[in-house]
Amino acid sequence: MTVKIKDVAKRAGVSVTSVSRVLNGEKYVSEDILARVNEAIEELKYSPSHIARSLKKQKTNTIGVIVPDLTSNFYSTILSSIEENASKYGYNLIVCNIAENLSKELKYLYIFQEMRVEGIIIMHEKTNDDIVSFIQNATMPILFSSVKSPDPTFMSVLIDDYQAAFDATEYLIDAGHTAISYLGGDLQDITSGQSRYNGFRDALIKHKIAINPDYIKFGDYKLPSGQALMKELLQLSNRPTVVFAASDDMAVGALNCALDQDLKVPDDISIIGFDGSTITNIVRPAITSMQQPIYEMGQISLESLHKLIARPKTQQKTDIVLQHQLVIRDSCKKIN
Amino acid sequence: MTVKIKDVAKRAGVSVTSVSRVLNGEKYVSEDILARVNEAIEELKYSPSHIARSLKKQKTNTIGVIVPDLTSNFYSTILSSIEENASKYGYNLIVCNIAENLSKELKYLYIFQEMRVEGIIIMHEKTNDDIVSFIQNATMPILFSSVKSPDPTFMSVLIDDYQAAFDATEYLIDAGHTAISYLGGDLQDITSGQSRYNGFRDALIKHKIAINPDYIKFGDYKLPSGQALMKELLQLSNRPTVVFAASDDMAVGALNCALDQDLKVPDDISIIGFDGSTITNIVRPAITSMQQPIYEMGQISLESLHKLIARPKTQQKTDIVLQHQLVIRDSCKKIN
Repeated sequence: MTVKIKDVAKRAGVSVTSVSRVLNGEKYVSEDILARVNEAIEELKYSPSHIARSLKKQKTNTIGVIVPDLTSNFYSTILSSIEENASKYGYNLIVCNIAENLSKELKYLYIFQEMRVEGIIIMHEKTNDDIVSFIQNATMPILFSSVKSPDPTFMSVLIDDYQAAFDATEYLIDAGHTAISYLGGDLQDITSGQSRYNGFRDALIKHKIAINPDYIKFGDYKLPSGQALMKELLQLSNRPTVVFAASDDMAVGALNCALDQDLKVPDDISIIGFDGSTITNIVRPAITSMQQPIYEMGQISLESLHKLIARPKTQQKTDIVLQHQLVIRDSCKKIN
Repeated sequence: MTVKIKDVAKRAGVSVTSVSRVLNGEKYVSEDILARVNEAIEELKYSPSHIARSLKKQKTNTIGVIVPDLTSNFYSTILSSIEENASKYGYNLIVCNIAENLSKELKYLYIFQEMRVEGIIIMHEKTNDDIVSFIQNATMPILFSSVKSPDPTFMSVLIDDYQAAFDATEYLIDAGHTAISYLGGDLQDITSGQSRYNGFRDALIKHKIAINPDYIKFGDYKLPSGQALMKELLQLSNRPTVVFAASDDMAVGALNCALDQDLKVPDDISIIGFDGSTITNIVRPAITSMQQPIYEMGQISLESLHKLIARPKTQQKTDIVLQHQLVIRDSCKKIN
């Protein structure tokens, strides 16, 4: 039996006119009705011929997402949250993995434009003049998620990386640590790299703890770099008592390096991560981490982009700064 | 300075005509020239206006990929490999995460068609009549990666799941285990679920080892289900000596359940996984696993699809079965 528009209306508890308005992509439909109709379409498996028809009407209901690295647990978790929330609003999600390559990013942005996506979410921090120029001339809304927009007139959904790193460092100082190592990411990343390092540094300064240059090392946020930098740290005659890794993947790398050298974490050395990726809870000991609200970040990014798409003129484009939160697990001990 | 077509030709060491043939998407360009020209375009950041022009010419150079679950390390690793190899051939990759939802899969297939992608890779095993009908009527090549195609006239790139599970089980039997538990996935999945279980069962039958029904449990391949099923196993008065998990994520779940109950792995209980996801090497102890050649699977899937796109008529569509390999790490002990 073919599902008809009136079946969708009945299931959604709305009028046929309302369903029709949703299907035709009219902008002034309430979010409640939009959500109910899309749910009914999903449940009844309303026919693909209709979807094809709506595509022909030039209303694509599609959002493009630029991801720097799909193998990162952090990005794949935000992406799942964006995907889940996009479904609620009836958007399709097209994901392009740029493998941290700016010329790929630019190419995919042009493809998104050609596809007539209705909005774009970018999760990549590095940029160049061509990309900034694309963004400034784009005809659809663009939002930055988890990173700061290179152009202040575009909206970002992110945490306060400086404050989060500052707070994580103060937690370590409060726990009695003074020999604190910092394994950082790329200092050219203004939000994640630079701000996190500055937060760490300023917390030490505030508490009059001297920075030991041997304890400060920079990698690329990925697991192997955490492992390699930890190896260097463990060769020091005067080891730190705790390692603050600027990403959870680096924290796991550091953890494995310590465990593989038969050290006990946190008895012999403490480790704290940053991001709140699920990996922190998978390894043993589970890693204490300064958590970004990853699920919420995906949800709010999608909802904010939806608002920009529906009512582009009436929206403020100020950043949304979400609250970071320290999640204490088993990798950090008090030494006072 | 604007990069011109002759600059690309010079860098690639080919004639301007050859570059032009590549850019116009002509089919009969040698793979060597194709690769060199695309590399030169990448290196010289050849102008996006040209990319836009090629899009207008209806040659999209785009491949669509359907992924069941982006948060799975297994799929994200294949995807990285497909992405890397797609770049070599000058394809753009559009990824759609269906979150194991068949109506989303169908919707995205129609979107791919509308976008005029030149080929599609599907990594999802479950299917329905609408999807099979789409595939059978599709105008572009479609290839199944890591799973069996629902229609034998379409090509699959995969391992022999039955034989891989059989071999893994024989390895355990050779190591002296007879009390062997199996934590399976979905039996409705013909390749992964059904075949792996049958391989396990037949190895026990061959070696005249009775199957203990208390030791056979089914979940959904994901970490929490491995953890939950392991909890049930550990409550048995007569515990198995080894657990064979049908995915690495389930193996990690089982490992964490054991570690959290202060058991030692493999001293108190051994664990073996399946897939060869990077997670097996991240946790401690590192997990022995029956490995699919994940990188190679992505590479061969892309190369095979490329051949189908370039010369659709001349290609055989027989499956490519890749070799599985047991990677011995630290989670399985000999007990004989």
